[in-house]
Amino acid sequence: MSELDLQQFNIRTDLALEAKEMAETPGGGPIPGIVSEVTEDNGITITQLHVQNEQGSQAIGKMQGQYVTIEVPELRNQDTELQDRVATAFAKHFEQFLERLGINKMAKILIVGLGNWNVTPDALGPLVVENVMVTRHYFELMPDQVAPGYRPVSAIAPGVLGITGIESSEIVQGIVERSKPDLIIAIDALASKAIERVNTTIQIADTGIHPGSGIGNKRKGLTKEILGVPVIAIGVPTVVYASTIVNNTIEMMRTHIETQKGDTNHIFGLMNQMAEQERLQLVREVLSPLGHDLLVTPKEIDQFIEDIANIIASGLNASLHDAVDTDNVAAYTH
Amino acid sequence: MSELDLQQFNIRTDLALEAKEMAETPGGGPIPGIVSEVTEDNGITITQLHVQNEQGSQAIGKMQGQYVTIEVPELRNQDTELQDRVATAFAKHFEQFLERLGINKMAKILIVGLGNWNVTPDALGPLVVENVMVTRHYFELMPDQVAPGYRPVSAIAPGVLGITGIESSEIVQGIVERSKPDLIIAIDALASKAIERVNTTIQIADTGIHPGSGIGNKRKGLTKEILGVPVIAIGVPTVVYASTIVNNTIEMMRTHIETQKGDTNHIFGLMNQMAEQERLQLVREVLSPLGHDLLVTPKEIDQFIEDIANIIASGLNASLHDAVDTDNVAAYTH
Amino acid sequence: MSELDLQQFNIRTDLALEAKEMAETPGGGPIPGIVSEVTEDNGITITQLHVQNEQGSQAIGKMQGQYVTIEVPELRNQDTELQDRVATAFAKHFEQFLERLGINKMAKILIVGLGNWNVTPDALGPLVVENVMVTRHYFELMPDQVAPGYRPVSAIAPGVLGITGIESSEIVQGIVERSKPDLIIAIDALASKAIERVNTTIQIADTGIHPGSGIGNKRKGLTKEILGVPVIAIGVPTVVYASTIVNNTIEMMRTHIETQKGDTNHIFGLMNQMAEQERLQLVREVLSPLGHDLLVTPKEIDQFIEDIANIIASGLNASLHDAVDTDNVAAYTH
Amino acid sequence: MSELDLQQFNIRTDLALEAKEMAETPGGGPIPGIVSEVTEDNGITITQLHVQNEQGSQAIGKMQGQYVTIEVPELRNQDTELQDRVATAFAKHFEQFLERLGINKMAKILIVGLGNWNVTPDALGPLVVENVMVTRHYFELMPDQVAPGYRPVSAIAPGVLGITGIESSEIVQGIVERSKPDLIIAIDALASKAIERVNTTIQIADTGIHPGSGIGNKRKGLTKEILGVPVIAIGVPTVVYASTIVNNTIEMMRTHIETQKGDTNHIFGLMNQMAEQERLQLVREVLSPLGHDLLVTPKEIDQFIEDIANIIASGLNASLHDAVDTDNVAAYTH
Repeated sequence: MSELDLQQFNIRTDLALEAKEMAETPGGGPIPGIVSEVTEDNGITITQLHVQNEQGSQAIGKMQGQYVTIEVPELRNQDTELQDRVATAFAKHFEQFLERLGINKMAKILIVGLGNWNVTPDALGPLVVENVMVTRHYFELMPDQVAPGYRPVSAIAPGVLGITGIESSEIVQGIVERSKPDLIIAIDALASKAIERVNTTIQIADTGIHPGSGIGNKRKGLTKEILGVPVIAIGVPTVVYASTIVNNTIEMMRTHIETQKGDTNHIFGLMNQMAEQERLQLVREVLSPLGHDLLVTPKEIDQFIEDIANIIASGLNASLHDAVDTDNVAAYTH
Repeated sequence: MSELDLQQFNIRTDLALEAKEMAETPGGGPIPGIVSEVTEDNGITITQLHVQNEQGSQAIGKMQGQYVTIEVPELRNQDTELQDRVATAFAKHFEQFLERLGINKMAKILIVGLGNWNVTPDALGPLVVENVMVTRHYFELMPDQVAPGYRPVSAIAPGVLGITGIESSEIVQGIVERSKPDLIIAIDALASKAIERVNTTIQIADTGIHPGSGIGNKRKGLTKEILGVPVIAIGVPTVVYASTIVNNTIEMMRTHIETQKGDTNHIFGLMNQMAEQERLQLVREVLSPLGHDLLVTPKEIDQFIEDIANIIASGLNASLHDAVDTDNVAAYTH
Repeated sequence: MSELDLQQFNIRTDLALEAKEMAETPGGGPIPGIVSEVTEDNGITITQLHVQNEQGSQAIGKMQGQYVTIEVPELRNQDTELQDRVATAFAKHFEQFLERLGINKMAKILIVGLGNWNVTPDALGPLVVENVMVTRHYFELMPDQVAPGYRPVSAIAPGVLGITGIESSEIVQGIVERSKPDLIIAIDALASKAIERVNTTIQIADTGIHPGSGIGNKRKGLTKEILGVPVIAIGVPTVVYASTIVNNTIEMMRTHIETQKGDTNHIFGLMNQMAEQERLQLVREVLSPLGHDLLVTPKEIDQFIEDIANIIASGLNASLHDAVDTDNVAAYTH
Repeated sequence: MSELDLQQFNIRTDLALEAKEMAETPGGGPIPGIVSEVTEDNGITITQLHVQNEQGSQAIGKMQGQYVTIEVPELRNQDTELQDRVATAFAKHFEQFLERLGINKMAKILIVGLGNWNVTPDALGPLVVENVMVTRHYFELMPDQVAPGYRPVSAIAPGVLGITGIESSEIVQGIVERSKPDLIIAIDALASKAIERVNTTIQIADTGIHPGSGIGNKRKGLTKEILGVPVIAIGVPTVVYASTIVNNTIEMMRTHIETQKGDTNHIFGLMNQMAEQERLQLVREVLSPLGHDLLVTPKEIDQFIEDIANIIASGLNASLHDAVDTDNVAAYTH
């Protein structure tokens, strides 16, 4: 697969999990350089995916590093008990990232909420920032009086280019240079290629944020190379292209007919034999000139995004402060 | 076409224009009982559609009455000059509804903004209510001091069943009985079958609001029969089903191949020969069990809906009050 | 004291507690027709005040009936443990109102949130409505499936005259006639005469809402006489006139000097001997012509009002539904 | 007057105009080092105040520099015509600041909106930032295509310590170091000593923002010394201490009695002879222990602050871009 195709993949999905799915060929065996493991527990599916080397990175078009994806198909149902379990699972896996990166208990954290607070499906990052516990100023102003079990955490929503006139990465760089955190956690809304993953999936990655990822199409990234400290990225797909909905559905129709022992060649004609990329190309050819290849989001996005922002904020509070655990975490979240 | 099919149409589109398109057969000639006329002016397409009798109503699954549809494909571009022209066109056509219904200059108007203010794509009605000029209380409290050129206008957003526990139609009925308006204008967000009409189209109809229409799936309507006074309905499609995006796109792909002299039978197989309803059925069979047949809305819905609510509020202010015209209308709108 | 003076009292305070304080003369003994009892428990002071007859009503300028005032000076401190205790105390006293009025377990309730949602200190009622459990529609749509321990509750925020053009009492009347509740609970923001009671005090009364009370200066009331069913009013003072701040402070200065054995006549001159009303008159004479006699609210009103709205919503949920108690009440409140 | 007193002044008023009024003694002649000039035009009073030297600075407790105060007592009346005139007056005087500081037509500007967006009376800065034209990114991304008459403007609302954990001045410093503006414009909500100036007054000063000024009690300033580029501060008083309302009113009562030829000694006793500071001290002694010396804001703050933020944003847009003038400025403001 050419690099151009990979780039097109990137435009369509920010999830490593989906990039891997797209790169796999039926019966093609594992992709060299990619190791993944899936576990399922009571409605929560966790995929740990390791892009081990440049070969793996090339194959799926994602940076080398660790990716954890938490998929919860029922997450849209406003079930508070399930939400609590997801926050706990998130916290557990997030702590493993902290350990792997050697982030100690008192290391200073800067949480960066990327995205545009005026665009609901892009407001995930700013919403998490509104809901996390911020403690750095207590350590600065009265270090002797901070109770044990907390660490210095600061948080910022840098806005987007159209609001500030400044790249969000430049704003973050400036703040990092002044406030000297040991780790950055960047939260961003993502594009998925599958409507069923929208607002039901959380991805954690130790790769930082790369240009072109996320809804806002950043032109500069937030990475260890640029900022000098490790960057853990947390993302939730909140939008999907109309063209990928169409393409996926045609694929699902084909599978549906096959499972019913139907003659897919007869029913789908040439479409049956097209490669996925070729068919997606056709779909886009049709939709794009008419301005129909929109990024869309479910009607109930306002509620969904608030619920997921609360889950992530709760999970972060529990992961970052020993004094906060998954039982009392709700009390610390707005 | 059976009544069942018609009902399925209703679920998919609230636009009479689209219902007519769906009922037409290629080369089938005009539908009896339906008269329509299209004019285009500088990016604004106006379709006047008259459902003249029961036969027409049955054929397209919409109530007898006058429908005007204003389509402005460029409306999503935040072009304030175009928005002003659309408000003017809206006002002109809305005044024709007032005239046809014999609503005189001092007739009392109640504007009803249907929908859920917590769900952005369903918040059109409440947003219009926030932005229209409300004058009834001046006529009640100091009738001698109201300047000429105004009429008594009141406005209410009755909420939705999940918020109030009461059907919005019951709330409106109670208010109508107390405040005795001569005409009701009901604004509601709609579902379209075409993503390109979402947030670019305004429909005016003298039929009132019918059960099952709109995003919120009302169970009771707002009609002259129920309320005792005429009801003009204003609607804007803000959502579309994932399944209709898919189905429409397949149709567009077929047309695309045909215009390129391709062999659509070869390429699309049996799909080429399926009736639209049959294919839609297949698409839904695939998407629904997985919970994928979501109502979706464009990512930029927050801005779009604010812009359209302003256009409608401006147009209503200009139509309803002689003292407000299309030049000074902006001053009266928030 | 003349009726005119009483009316002026009404403008200044909506709390029966304060009206009684103002009507009392030093060493003057109890006011005939007024019985009151104060209890204090760990930072929460409860005053039960009974206006027994017309004489008592005349004396303090408040309607006959039962008033309970919950004063919590520390309520502004965002202490969630204290907030929970206040919600519990509120629920306990509210249930006594239900019992006294003979409201049975399945009686239908309509909660009315008065006030203007665009004016933060007047938004208490609409905020409570957003946060209470609404259940009436379940009883209407699927009566057999509602779990035991719930009753039918509906809720509406009717807006204010400037927004709708219709008196809120007329809107409520219309809704009552259609939805036939057995009891109305009306929530409203109030004016206090003492800045320390602002956002720290909740009043419950079985008298309904009277014209001229509350921030919005209703012109019509919500009472059993008008609506045909009992009305319990819940109010929180959120604003105070600048003039009453001044007047109270001068009084406090006098007391301060007295406790320090100072010669208040010497220090305050004639002001020391003025009756409170006379001095207030002087303060207003000075402030009003300059437009300085504003209603003011503490800077932190946004947070305060959200906290108190949550307390009231939690307390109502626990009082109204047996299945909700003071331990699990938070889960039901947004 | 001791430095301690001056500091207390600072706590009470952020307006140089008021600091000067407080430092003046009746019949005491002009204060050395302070030059001021007042002009009035159709409801808009402009005071130009120059603190010329250290002596003047000491006398009134304000930094050396130019201060312009625009007072519009009718500004709270939602009169759009008056608002437009105020925006024009603001733009005219703001341009004089640009000229005096030698800021050329293409100089890069960073607008900083200080304050807490969750606290309505402190949200002035963030609201202005939401409403100003931001253009810097066009100059960065496509410098050849920017129309003449514009300059690069960026804008940021850095939040407050309680939200971010980082001093707003540190965040601004970081952004200044990365984005290299030639001038900073900082907007902040202020405290006044007079309730009539709240939400009716705009102060422009070339002194920057100093620690302890504004509502949020910054601990670090935004000044040329710290940031390396000039800082123009724009402030609007939105809050006032309860104690200063009381103290001012007593003073107004004294004046009122005097003008009526009353014997103020007789009426006010010793209070008549107290120095203003002494009396304020007494007022605070009474209010503070009870937690009554709150910062308060008028009930209608939501509307007031939105109106003033729009005026300032319009004025800035017109001042900063030659292509925007006071006629078309509204089109550029949200």
